Amino acid sequence: MTMDMTFLGTGSAYPSPHRGASALVLRTDGDCWLFDCGEGTQTQLMKSQLRAGRITKVFISHLHGDHLFGLPGLLCTVSLNTNPDPQSQQNQPCLDIYGPRGLRHFLRVTLGLTGSQLLFPYAVHELEPTPDQSPEEGQLSPEMTAEHGSLHPQEQLGRTISLDVSSDCYRLFEDKKFVVSAFRLFHRVPSFGFCIQEHDRPGRLKTEVLKELGVKPGPLYGRLKAGESVTLDSGRVVLPSEVLEEDIPGRKVCIFGDCSSVLGDGPLRLCSGADVLVHEATLGNEHREKAVDHGHSTPEMAAAVARSCGAQRLVLYHFSQRYKPCTLQKEGDEDDVSELKRQAEDALQDTGTQVTLAEDFLTLSIPLKKKR
Amino acid sequence: MTMDMTFLGTGSAYPSPHRGASALVLRTDGDCWLFDCGEGTQTQLMKSQLRAGRITKVFISHLHGDHLFGLPGLLCTVSLNTNPDPQSQQNQPCLDIYGPRGLRHFLRVTLGLTGSQLLFPYAVHELEPTPDQSPEEGQLSPEMTAEHGSLHPQEQLGRTISLDVSSDCYRLFEDKKFVVSAFRLFHRVPSFGFCIQEHDRPGRLKTEVLKELGVKPGPLYGRLKAGESVTLDSGRVVLPSEVLEEDIPGRKVCIFGDCSSVLGDGPLRLCSGADVLVHEATLGNEHREKAVDHGHSTPEMAAAVARSCGAQRLVLYHFSQRYKPCTLQKEGDEDDVSELKRQAEDALQDTGTQVTLAEDFLTLSIPLKKKR
Ligand SMILES: [Zn+2]
Ligand SMILES: [Zn+2]
Ligand SMILES: [Zn+2]
Ligand SMILES: [Zn+2]
Repeated sequence: MTMDMTFLGTGSAYPSPHRGASALVLRTDGDCWLFDCGEGTQTQLMKSQLRAGRITKVFISHLHGDHLFGLPGLLCTVSLNTNPDPQSQQNQPCLDIYGPRGLRHFLRVTLGLTGSQLLFPYAVHELEPTPDQSPEEGQLSPEMTAEHGSLHPQEQLGRTISLDVSSDCYRLFEDKKFVVSAFRLFHRVPSFGFCIQEHDRPGRLKTEVLKELGVKPGPLYGRLKAGESVTLDSGRVVLPSEVLEEDIPGRKVCIFGDCSSVLGDGPLRLCSGADVLVHEATLGNEHREKAVDHGHSTPEMAAAVARSCGAQRLVLYHFSQRYKPCTLQKEGDEDDVSELKRQAEDALQDTGTQVTLAEDFLTLSIPLKKKR
Repeated sequence: MTMDMTFLGTGSAYPSPHRGASALVLRTDGDCWLFDCGEGTQTQLMKSQLRAGRITKVFISHLHGDHLFGLPGLLCTVSLNTNPDPQSQQNQPCLDIYGPRGLRHFLRVTLGLTGSQLLFPYAVHELEPTPDQSPEEGQLSPEMTAEHGSLHPQEQLGRTISLDVSSDCYRLFEDKKFVVSAFRLFHRVPSFGFCIQEHDRPGRLKTEVLKELGVKPGPLYGRLKAGESVTLDSGRVVLPSEVLEEDIPGRKVCIFGDCSSVLGDGPLRLCSGADVLVHEATLGNEHREKAVDHGHSTPEMAAAVARSCGAQRLVLYHFSQRYKPCTLQKEGDEDDVSELKRQAEDALQDTGTQVTLAEDFLTLSIPLKKKR
């Protein structure tokens, strides 16, 4: 299964002509999952190779506008691209949207007041933050998130997901390919990271061994691969472990929302051994105090997280708009985004962790893992 | 006083890489008024010569997302560009925002849930639509617009403005330079147009006549120009009408929101003699039925409005995204935006009305009027 990640916006605070606001797409075999949706994400999508209509799930890390203001418009435009045939409309799958408490009310009001009818159903599954995820002024009062009135006509009631205290994480869902969890971060408002863990897959059949045992290609192969033992005509019982190479471990992708630190021990445990760890680096190390004041991280702080997790690759994004993209960088410019990469590399030089600087429209492929 | 208008977005339904969603700025001596604010308007502003921080008033024609979804983000970004010095913060003027009922709740929820603090106060002045401005399903229930909870911390309570039945319009405000009114349009949701009427100004002093009368340049000139009679040492009374050329009539700019027709007789009376009349033309004449079905106009319909008003200039905008900008038009492309211009011109050929096709970033200057 191919798996890649495309950054649609890598700027912090607001979209600019040279850096979109936060948004990235994780794509697996044509299934697109959108992580954050700042203003202008739909236009960035149009500029990219991806298609908005392919988005099947949305994840919002936190309710700051630079991660959220593009969502109502994106839903409307996806709907415009949906087949209006009532027959096909009934078969439209529900778009699942995951994000912090308050997101359901946000969408209900923005879609409702603008008279936005969608040609597909959606559900918002809300993560219940804990009070220590932000300073007190960043917490939403129950009054603010109270869901007055009725559901949006296309809304299906989503789940409310609380922290699983034993694992210190939020269990979002499991499907045939992945287990997806969320974990807590500290920011000016409650923020979350997401961990996408691919299932392990059975190793390849050892065809040489099968040949020696006299097992012919066909249904028996499938049964062995599916983990069943098989009895040959000779009476010999063949165990899957004899003829299968080791399991191919699933890939793990971890996408952090804005934060100045992780919260609890769940995040690092969950993200341990990540193939790709995407972390914000809003400002350079020299602005650490300002970054932390605003609930943000520096490359050094992001590197410390990647080190604790033993991540294969650290991808930096969510840069202050003062950092121009490399391609627009001019000699003598004070703020150089490639300096952020160097800072993270310096902090990781005794590890094998690769550092990548995200830019708008960068696509990063996430190759299958080698055997353990 | 210089006066010009810059189109930041001329596309309908959603923003695309070649046409932004609806937004235009009317600028007079550095004062910028924003009309509509589709998603991505702040980025379009950054690409233009204008500065977001100069916006002093905002007008929203109707609550469709392609006219509104950029507003919360724009306010946040304007705030980021505001001097955070508490002293200067106290002196920040209130940003006045005008738009249909429901806008106050929209901003309160979007700014509130995203924890968006602004460094300036704002007030939303809501226009109360009448039930005949849209089909019943386009009307907001009182439940939808009920303003639960407290004001946003930076919100000042705005006015609620009802239709003035005798003039069939909404009186928004009058300042030193302008009288601004709104009028009713028919669309899928209640929509409004705005009429910006500049005050007439006294004509120039006839210096030849003054010289003959023996009036010397000085304070007497000022009093005459201000409309006062003046008694000379000789006892001769000089009337302003003797020494002033005719009043210079103020300019009139009319900006229509989405519509398939005007409502009542207010709009045409109010817009009579407009120097510039900005009207949507979503689809060509050949798609009239579809346009009207969706509450939109064709060039011919826009031309009919301009004709009824005796407008000097009709500016078309809000084009379906199927129409590429002229600069991207390729030979053989089916939908040609310049055909929309021809259709309006055909319908106006026996009048003196000029037709202009708006494009993103077009700036149109609105020259002082000649004498009547
Ligand atoms: Zn952010
Ligand atoms: Zn944030
Ligand atoms: Zn529109
Ligand atoms: Zn509309």
